[in-house]
Amino acid sequence: MTYCVGLFLDEGLVMLADTRTNAGLDNISCFAKLQPFHRPADRMIAAMTAGNLAVSQAVINLIQEGIENPETGALETIYSVPTMFGAAALVSKAVRLVYHTHGKAMLDQDVPFDVSILLGGQVAGRTMRLFQIYAAGNFIEATRDTPFLQVGEHKYGKPILDRAVTSSTTLTEGVKLALISMDSTLRSNLSVGMPLDLLVYRNDSIDSVETHRIEENDAYFRMIRDHWSVALSDAHRQIPAPEWLHRPTPGKRQQK
Amino acid sequence: MTYCVGLFLDEGLVMLADTRTNAGLDNISCFAKLQPFHRPADRMIAAMTAGNLAVSQAVINLIQEGIENPETGALETIYSVPTMFGAAALVSKAVRLVYHTHGKAMLDQDVPFDVSILLGGQVAGRTMRLFQIYAAGNFIEATRDTPFLQVGEHKYGKPILDRAVTSSTTLTEGVKLALISMDSTLRSNLSVGMPLDLLVYRNDSIDSVETHRIEENDAYFRMIRDHWSVALSDAHRQIPAPEWLHRPTPGKRQQK
Repeated sequence: MTYCVGLFLDEGLVMLADTRTNAGLDNISCFAKLQPFHRPADRMIAAMTAGNLAVSQAVINLIQEGIENPETGALETIYSVPTMFGAAALVSKAVRLVYHTHGKAMLDQDVPFDVSILLGGQVAGRTMRLFQIYAAGNFIEATRDTPFLQVGEHKYGKPILDRAVTSSTTLTEGVKLALISMDSTLRSNLSVGMPLDLLVYRNDSIDSVETHRIEENDAYFRMIRDHWSVALSDAHRQIPAPEWLHRPTPGKRQQK
Repeated sequence: MTYCVGLFLDEGLVMLADTRTNAGLDNISCFAKLQPFHRPADRMIAAMTAGNLAVSQAVINLIQEGIENPETGALETIYSVPTMFGAAALVSKAVRLVYHTHGKAMLDQDVPFDVSILLGGQVAGRTMRLFQIYAAGNFIEATRDTPFLQVGEHKYGKPILDRAVTSSTTLTEGVKLALISMDSTLRSNLSVGMPLDLLVYRNDSIDSVETHRIEENDAYFRMIRDHWSVALSDAHRQIPAPEWLHRPTPGKRQQK
């Protein structure tokens, strides 16, 4: 299983993915699911993938090697598309090509054709965007009203995002919230696993992008996990008990 | 959809269920999913159901009307079974009877035979127990190591329980935590809905049980929702930013 989350904030993008893949519980490996395509001064695009590993690796390969445009005959790649919308459309085409090539054989073996991709970034002079591409090749886009998208095992990590993320959340808070959301997922689903890959991109700063690999023993992530557990425990203890709970039964007299 | 959670604490049981049922998003109703069977001095048993409403109502009817014991010919009901294990076995029989009666016709219409039941309580002189019965009629039991069980839309509300509930959690804290877990679910899944039904049972107090219906405008529940949101926001803001974030690029000199 996989968990990937992308925050689409006014300040920029935060993208966080785990690295665990498994084909059954006894065949567990570590694969990067976050793939940046960065060419300073020109574009910073990053993809995060969930679902069947063979499918997602084929898609990532195709968008780098290029897909022929039937009208012009030219090869389109993730480095040549002129816009983020074009990048999403390229990923969509790649998904459909992989389905065309492998879909039927997979379904014959009862392997579902399962892939979801988050694609975020910016092309120089254009606006920053974040898309989610489905297995059918159709796609949606994050907006200021819905400033995060998730793929994979998304439910455990959603409540904190629902409550705390708005488009005006800063990049720094966004990094913390994405890590908290990931921590909730790691605790509740063993098949989502460390290390984590994090990408932080500041809006309109095509020249630079930050990527970090967060290992199991990363001091900051461990601090967040501990801090968050303590904070949650304190928070529920501070809530007063309901007045209606354990109310004395009518027959029982209370002393003044 | 449904969310029901049962906490199996040293002090007693906390059982909480929403009341929304839907057959498609445009056919939404309110049905009690928490059903207590209480006979003071003798037994306090309560069931919470998730899944197909016709199936769960049929099961609840059957365990009250009774199922004939093929060996003795006697009718066994939820009020006659001698132990909680016997109660779980009775629910299991009821689930299988309903499957026998309606399962094939439902599957012919592509309606999955879907039901999960939490069954908690105590028979006088016996230990308090909490079971989860599956659609196949098999069942598991909560233990001190795993002091909560959930049915229905369980993922959104699981992280807080994973972090905060142990068997030594008090009933009062348990009520708060169950409500917080429900709030996370309500926020993230529109098809889980108010009002809520809450049952609080103190271990070895067969004579009394508390039940509360918590309506949409309940002041305490609204306070918990607000308090929890504020507490979460404060908690993540108090976590320091990672040192490695926004580190100046190597080319950029820093002043001492």
